[in-house]
Amino acid sequence: MKKLEMIYEGKAKKIFRTELPQQLIMEYKDSLTAFNAQKKGEFAGKGKLNCQISTLIFKILQAGGIDHHWIETIDETCMRVYETHIVPLEVVVRNRVAGSLAKKLGIEEGRMLSGPLVEFYYKNDLLNDPFVSDDQIIAMGWANQDVLNHLKKQAILINSILEPVFKKIELTLVDFKIEFGRNLEGHIILADEISPDCMRLWDVKSGEKMDKDRFRRDLGNVESAYNEVYSRLLNGGF
Amino acid sequence: MKKLEMIYEGKAKKIFRTELPQQLIMEYKDSLTAFNAQKKGEFAGKGKLNCQISTLIFKILQAGGIDHHWIETIDETCMRVYETHIVPLEVVVRNRVAGSLAKKLGIEEGRMLSGPLVEFYYKNDLLNDPFVSDDQIIAMGWANQDVLNHLKKQAILINSILEPVFKKIELTLVDFKIEFGRNLEGHIILADEISPDCMRLWDVKSGEKMDKDRFRRDLGNVESAYNEVYSRLLNGGF
Repeated sequence: MKKLEMIYEGKAKKIFRTELPQQLIMEYKDSLTAFNAQKKGEFAGKGKLNCQISTLIFKILQAGGIDHHWIETIDETCMRVYETHIVPLEVVVRNRVAGSLAKKLGIEEGRMLSGPLVEFYYKNDLLNDPFVSDDQIIAMGWANQDVLNHLKKQAILINSILEPVFKKIELTLVDFKIEFGRNLEGHIILADEISPDCMRLWDVKSGEKMDKDRFRRDLGNVESAYNEVYSRLLNGGF
Repeated sequence: MKKLEMIYEGKAKKIFRTELPQQLIMEYKDSLTAFNAQKKGEFAGKGKLNCQISTLIFKILQAGGIDHHWIETIDETCMRVYETHIVPLEVVVRNRVAGSLAKKLGIEEGRMLSGPLVEFYYKNDLLNDPFVSDDQIIAMGWANQDVLNHLKKQAILINSILEPVFKKIELTLVDFKIEFGRNLEGHIILADEISPDCMRLWDVKSGEKMDKDRFRRDLGNVESAYNEVYSRLLNGGF
């Protein structure tokens, strides 16, 4: 499998065409960004870590029956994935209040929610990915209620698979962001990546943050936190 | 009917207890505020105009079968209303894109929506009344889905009554904000006011704004716009 034309370069990944139609190569970069790329950083090996962590998570979700774009991981930073047409929504699942929701509602971080809360953000860097309601999404024609219900159901299912995985390795899955794409048959499947770049993971005992908040909030030890998440997943038998 | 103890003073209204249990007096003030009261103004007679316009609108909605808190208007600036426990949501109905939605989604003001869009904002001045989704409202325990569906249905019904009323007097009802309260029997009814303070009304021919945007955006002639809305309603036979 060869990387041909690069068709997309984002903040943390590059996407290449391959010699196979409908299959792409997704390459993880070492760069780290936050606040819609207003804050930039990187560490050597971050692309590798996220690729390996994402790989483990796609395998776990595959065993859980989730449809996704991952086919195989072909080297340290690259995975082969099915081509999809991305649904222009960031889908966030929250088990506890943190980040933008804590700020918006004036609630302390860490408060448990009575069940997982799913939120949609319109993927648009120029507009800073605004939070949108189901009714706004439908009014704008980005998706219909059936699609939104499907995304919510899948998001909650993914949460129900991942939450105990992280619990087993003594990490609290506070929240995470996922993206979905429509494959060439028209089915909506999980796409993008799932890594500490797009989740909040707190150490169960110390409460220490083990995710991109270490970078966002200048807490230091970003690299060792990502490494620790990967090690715990491996040592946990995942 | 006498004003007894004042139990609330807001940006544009005061509420008093009366000698009758479960009935209150709502007095309209001359003050105008915008951007969560960061911008303040007033004009003499504004309270009177909003009270009279609200009265006409409550009468129109009553004829349309909408349950509401208005009982009668007792003088130029005061109405007698049923006591309700306010649902902590501002309910916005939009027929066209304008204001915060236009800004958030990068859409030009005035674009028609394919149908009325209902939005909820959490009533909290300290938090700047943040926009919230159904799922967030439910997660926070502010209302359940049945209540939200009822609010949406009522809001759309109110829109379907008011939109042709304003059209008849050559005003486009772009959007409006309403509030609901639970009365002492537990029924959710329309509360608060409906006036140019909480609607966008554009002259059909000139496109001129005839509402609080004249104040928000320093367009001048605020008073004459409110007067014009009142006159047109009266001359239109409402």
